[in-house]
Amino acid sequence: MKQTITEKIFSEHVKKEVFAGQIAESKIDMIIGNDITTPISIKAFRDSGAKKLANPDGFAIVMDHYIPAKDIMSANQAKISRDFAYEHNLKNFFDEKDMGIEHALLPEKGLVIPGDVIIGADSHTCTHGALGAFSTGMGSTDLAYAMITGKNWFKIPQTIKVVFKGKPGKHIYGKDLILEVIRMIGVDGALYKALEFTGESISYLGMDDRFSLCNMAIEAGAKSGIIAVDEVTKEFLNSKKLRDKPKFHYSDDGANYDKILEIDISKLDPVVAYPFLPSNAKNIREAVKDDIKIDQAFIGSCTNGRLSDLRVAAEILKGKRVAKRTRLIITPATQKIFLQAQKEGLIDIFVEAGAVVSNPTCGACLGGYMGILADGERCISTTNRNFVGRMGARTSEIYLANSAVAAASSITGKISDPRDL
Amino acid sequence: MKQTITEKIFSEHVKKEVFAGQIAESKIDMIIGNDITTPISIKAFRDSGAKKLANPDGFAIVMDHYIPAKDIMSANQAKISRDFAYEHNLKNFFDEKDMGIEHALLPEKGLVIPGDVIIGADSHTCTHGALGAFSTGMGSTDLAYAMITGKNWFKIPQTIKVVFKGKPGKHIYGKDLILEVIRMIGVDGALYKALEFTGESISYLGMDDRFSLCNMAIEAGAKSGIIAVDEVTKEFLNSKKLRDKPKFHYSDDGANYDKILEIDISKLDPVVAYPFLPSNAKNIREAVKDDIKIDQAFIGSCTNGRLSDLRVAAEILKGKRVAKRTRLIITPATQKIFLQAQKEGLIDIFVEAGAVVSNPTCGACLGGYMGILADGERCISTTNRNFVGRMGARTSEIYLANSAVAAASSITGKISDPRDL
Repeated sequence: MKQTITEKIFSEHVKKEVFAGQIAESKIDMIIGNDITTPISIKAFRDSGAKKLANPDGFAIVMDHYIPAKDIMSANQAKISRDFAYEHNLKNFFDEKDMGIEHALLPEKGLVIPGDVIIGADSHTCTHGALGAFSTGMGSTDLAYAMITGKNWFKIPQTIKVVFKGKPGKHIYGKDLILEVIRMIGVDGALYKALEFTGESISYLGMDDRFSLCNMAIEAGAKSGIIAVDEVTKEFLNSKKLRDKPKFHYSDDGANYDKILEIDISKLDPVVAYPFLPSNAKNIREAVKDDIKIDQAFIGSCTNGRLSDLRVAAEILKGKRVAKRTRLIITPATQKIFLQAQKEGLIDIFVEAGAVVSNPTCGACLGGYMGILADGERCISTTNRNFVGRMGARTSEIYLANSAVAAASSITGKISDPRDL
Repeated sequence: MKQTITEKIFSEHVKKEVFAGQIAESKIDMIIGNDITTPISIKAFRDSGAKKLANPDGFAIVMDHYIPAKDIMSANQAKISRDFAYEHNLKNFFDEKDMGIEHALLPEKGLVIPGDVIIGADSHTCTHGALGAFSTGMGSTDLAYAMITGKNWFKIPQTIKVVFKGKPGKHIYGKDLILEVIRMIGVDGALYKALEFTGESISYLGMDDRFSLCNMAIEAGAKSGIIAVDEVTKEFLNSKKLRDKPKFHYSDDGANYDKILEIDISKLDPVVAYPFLPSNAKNIREAVKDDIKIDQAFIGSCTNGRLSDLRVAAEILKGKRVAKRTRLIITPATQKIFLQAQKEGLIDIFVEAGAVVSNPTCGACLGGYMGILADGERCISTTNRNFVGRMGARTSEIYLANSAVAAASSITGKISDPRDL
């Protein structure tokens, strides 16, 4: 019978043909925890009486949320993961020494392989689907089950096929594509489904844009986002020392889809999601008319803190100055990205423009630290969520956009179209 | 009658000869507030009914403690200073756009002038005495009085003259000199007195070491630390666009001193201050014997986050790797220092060695954010205070040292002598 790529990945893992709707217990190739979710997993692991991890090399802990520690509580919390990592001699423990946001760091380290089944105690674990893997967020206790057994159970998700048509115009990125999808189907439009991104437009997207696209699948309620491997993916993989041999799967013609969504992106303008939902998206032209003054611009996160984001921002910020009453915070997603950005002169451009460049961290995006908003403040942000209070005070507002829009807006002090600069 | 440099500065300001012990109301040349102390000054200013600052260009607000905001409270707190700065159109408002730790930033910007009387709502305001100014920390409401009137009252302090003799050996810095002074006289050894640093050794110290030396005068209880202008100072001043014309004062031979302290530094070894007082200092040789494992090394702060500190650390860290279970955080004191460090390749060296390089901030030093210690953790730190819980949990421990000791210790994972590497 015809299968989707997601059904094929699970079939390969459980060694029999499985289809959407079925329950399957699958081997897990990679488990991901971070400094705020892993301590709960560790407690559940210990409470079970378990002594050894089923697959130590398939467990990555990434210290990215409140690190370096922002307060005593986060310091004590971090210590739990550190002690566990040393006790179990974890190969894939990424602390301050090798800082990075988990969903940027793991692909960079060659730890995400096409064909993998990956779970992470972080909602944006769906990012890794950009490499043709099944990757989804789970709770910390679900993680513990996999830490102990090496497996977990899944209801194989139905798939919504998204077919992007046309070539993206200037300053249209993966971020705009996913914001447009969420605008169309809503924040629960893909509940417990796989979003499979296909169509000719994909070939125009580099890996950074693909990660950004899959990253926000969860914001439509999806279990996962996925893009089949192509030449762009292979080039990316060839630049890495991979954890394992990749397995390329492709959806069959005639596979069973829950829905097929066709979107012509050739005329798409940059998309801005207004508070307080990622689905509350409008055309940048409309936002410009609304004359929305901003206190802060933020470029970073697992959605848009990659090298291409920094390059786009630097191109716009070069020789310019952030508006008098506006702050600009730029958070490269990993140390490798930071070093490369430095090499290319991007960090100089940012600091000279008046930006603060921070260490890699999830900090600002989740209201953790490194750029929290005060009462009534407004932020244009490349992050993934604009819920009430997500980046700080309950009365603050977040507008989601791509890195070019955020950079342009930081210069003018209000939400601006980078194509107008 | 013969006068000390401090008596001369005040005499010039009050336009009559004044001496230690007398009360004088002096014009204030520069008032310094930061994001955590200024809001209280602003409240007192407003409560008084005042509308205008006596001298707007003589009031600097530096956003350095919890910036970019670490939480909603610090974000709301920051907003108070920001709104005030914009309302009064402050020329010397340094926000994220021009980040730096106040006591490194002000001299860098040419805002500290020899002969000045400076007050700041921060205990380490004594740093600026390194430029031959009288500079002292005061409370936020004292600041408000000066904001309104342009003046404040002082009891002219008696002076302890410290005469340093001999040439400092390898890896002996301003930090070691001041730790040695505090070891000798104790944390209340200079209570309400000016510490005047003199002697042939001073000529061997660059400005960075002099700032470091004066910075910790307060840790001996001193009202101020001061070093008379010499060729090194003049060279520093010549590189700046100064706020005002400098006035050079020198203590008279036969001026009246409370005490004269002679210290031969030619045989001094690097000094390490054990918990929980800066006066609890020991020779590095002893610390090495004590085999003190560390969880974190910190290089930064208004004491030791300057370019020379980063150069010293980079020389030691080049091609090395931070110990497996140790974290290294490096916080350049200003964006200018960060950019220059980057230009010299120091930032690359740090990140490649496994350090986290943060934005300029007071964060870690005062237990604010960016490297808080967990229960029972131990840190070797270039900062100025090792009180109980200063950098985090009450059960954590801080050992104070110079940047070379901190860098060397980060590599070995225990307190180490940089001369042994």
